[in-house]
Amino acid sequence: MTTHSRTATLMRRGSDFLGSETAILCGAMSWVSERNLVSAISNAGGFGVIACGAMTPDLLDTEIAATREMTDKPFGVNLITMHPQLFDLIEVCAKHDVGHVVLAGGIPPKGSVEAIKNGGARVICFAPTLALAKKLLRSGADALVIEGMEAGGHIGPVSTSVLAQEMLPALAADHLVFVAGGIGRGEAMAGYLEMGACGVQLGTRFACATESIAHPAFKKAFFRASARDAVASVQLDPRLPVIPVRALRNKGTEHFTATQREVMGRLDREEVAMAEAQLQIEHYWAGALRRAVVDGDIENGSLMAGQSVGMVTEEEPVAEIIARLMSESEAALARR
Amino acid sequence: MTTHSRTATLMRRGSDFLGSETAILCGAMSWVSERNLVSAISNAGGFGVIACGAMTPDLLDTEIAATREMTDKPFGVNLITMHPQLFDLIEVCAKHDVGHVVLAGGIPPKGSVEAIKNGGARVICFAPTLALAKKLLRSGADALVIEGMEAGGHIGPVSTSVLAQEMLPALAADHLVFVAGGIGRGEAMAGYLEMGACGVQLGTRFACATESIAHPAFKKAFFRASARDAVASVQLDPRLPVIPVRALRNKGTEHFTATQREVMGRLDREEVAMAEAQLQIEHYWAGALRRAVVDGDIENGSLMAGQSVGMVTEEEPVAEIIARLMSESEAALARR
Repeated sequence: MTTHSRTATLMRRGSDFLGSETAILCGAMSWVSERNLVSAISNAGGFGVIACGAMTPDLLDTEIAATREMTDKPFGVNLITMHPQLFDLIEVCAKHDVGHVVLAGGIPPKGSVEAIKNGGARVICFAPTLALAKKLLRSGADALVIEGMEAGGHIGPVSTSVLAQEMLPALAADHLVFVAGGIGRGEAMAGYLEMGACGVQLGTRFACATESIAHPAFKKAFFRASARDAVASVQLDPRLPVIPVRALRNKGTEHFTATQREVMGRLDREEVAMAEAQLQIEHYWAGALRRAVVDGDIENGSLMAGQSVGMVTEEEPVAEIIARLMSESEAALARR
Repeated sequence: MTTHSRTATLMRRGSDFLGSETAILCGAMSWVSERNLVSAISNAGGFGVIACGAMTPDLLDTEIAATREMTDKPFGVNLITMHPQLFDLIEVCAKHDVGHVVLAGGIPPKGSVEAIKNGGARVICFAPTLALAKKLLRSGADALVIEGMEAGGHIGPVSTSVLAQEMLPALAADHLVFVAGGIGRGEAMAGYLEMGACGVQLGTRFACATESIAHPAFKKAFFRASARDAVASVQLDPRLPVIPVRALRNKGTEHFTATQREVMGRLDREEVAMAEAQLQIEHYWAGALRRAVVDGDIENGSLMAGQSVGMVTEEEPVAEIIARLMSESEAALARR
């Protein structure tokens, strides 16, 4: 790899922490971030992260072992805080000496951060606000990810650039903060690094890499899409909670909106009970991501994607993507 | 003013173009961007822009003359492309030798760019996509503003960081591009300048400056708000178009959502004609911005604000805001 001295210097704290050549994390994408993509990212000098998602402890055990067969570089595991077997999953990570566990999906439940650290791993948490960031650091988080609303999948309400301005000047001198959401080019990496970030996390940019097992139809949908096709799901009724998810607009997203309107009407006419109505909305997308990624059903599946999808135009090996990001960052840092 | 040599160098093309000391534009905010704030911005080394909004040609004539009484520095005028008297307004600008006209609110109508240039002014246009940016430049635009979804007021669908990555590498070497949306600190300015922007535009950060005539209650609402309080209006029904506007959540925004639901129901029950229903939604916010800014009705008025509102915490003179932005930018550029 060419030397990217300015970028490497600004990333040093992050790459030392991760044990990787660059401080570029690959965001954990359900069904996409498995052994093939994760090992490819780590082998190319980034830091791959297995998306545990709804996996059982046994499946995670197998996935970690299989990933380690494919790389001797460090990689991490992303666990969802509301997984009913969270503590068993933490034990599986410890058994395999996984060095870094990313906790996603909400405030870590009592004892989980301690359990991970007792198992010998570092803990990386998502911080949605400055107040929560400080709380997470006090509770033992070793590093934070701040992720803006332009990211793919489950999102918060605030953009990456605003989160970066609110969090980095306050935290980055004393703490490790990775920036995520909408990053598709190295120039953006450079900007966040100069604001004090120790590294970045990209998901969408890697989802369609050559090494990704995502279905060819899924990849083709990404190559065709532009930023404005990656839209956040909208909640139409305060009675029917919808967790905001960013995904490519398709028949499924249109039908979801229509379904909300239909259920609203039935609620108004008292044809359905509140709990039943809420369940219909909550379960609407069950299995939809798998249908898109694995089965290639790009009409009805969930094509979770960030707004950086417009910068994903062809299948490229992970190593090329990382090399390009690094040289774009270096060129931006050299400009003055 | 202290010398901010790195920032000034990266801004040189922008400040040369504007004729101002810094390439910091103040976004045109209806009712807020009038003689007092505009002259204060220009006097402090930024570039103030009068928001013409729905003003008649006579009112604009008066406003430009009054602004010139208060500053001998250059300032611009923002015109909305759908104003029925657009060409008369352009003549008023020419009469006063206004150096820069910003065209906002959609594709410039045929002949408008030419009319502005014949009057001796430079034309600055908003570019929502790369394809439209190229078209606007071919049609004679002298500079572009790209504005992300985290901005206040009327917004597009794509975040500032993503627009910057899509547009700046493709355009900035040969063209003048200002970046807007969610900028509240100089570190973010630095990042965009390094990506090739010739300058930036901020609105929310200046709305509550000491020199702003916004009502004290309006300013207090800004000081109290955090980024997640500045929400985009949501369209509930494809039959009832809603132009997305970002504003602070209040009774008015809640009532607007309830009104949409009510009108949807009446449409479904055929109690109202489509045209009448659409008009009710379209006119909902008429006068609401004036009610908030001028009358201080922060419950029912429209508190248009960008997500940078969380970085606005007290009343400060414009000169102090600009000095702080410049030194934050300089510190970020010095980091490596």
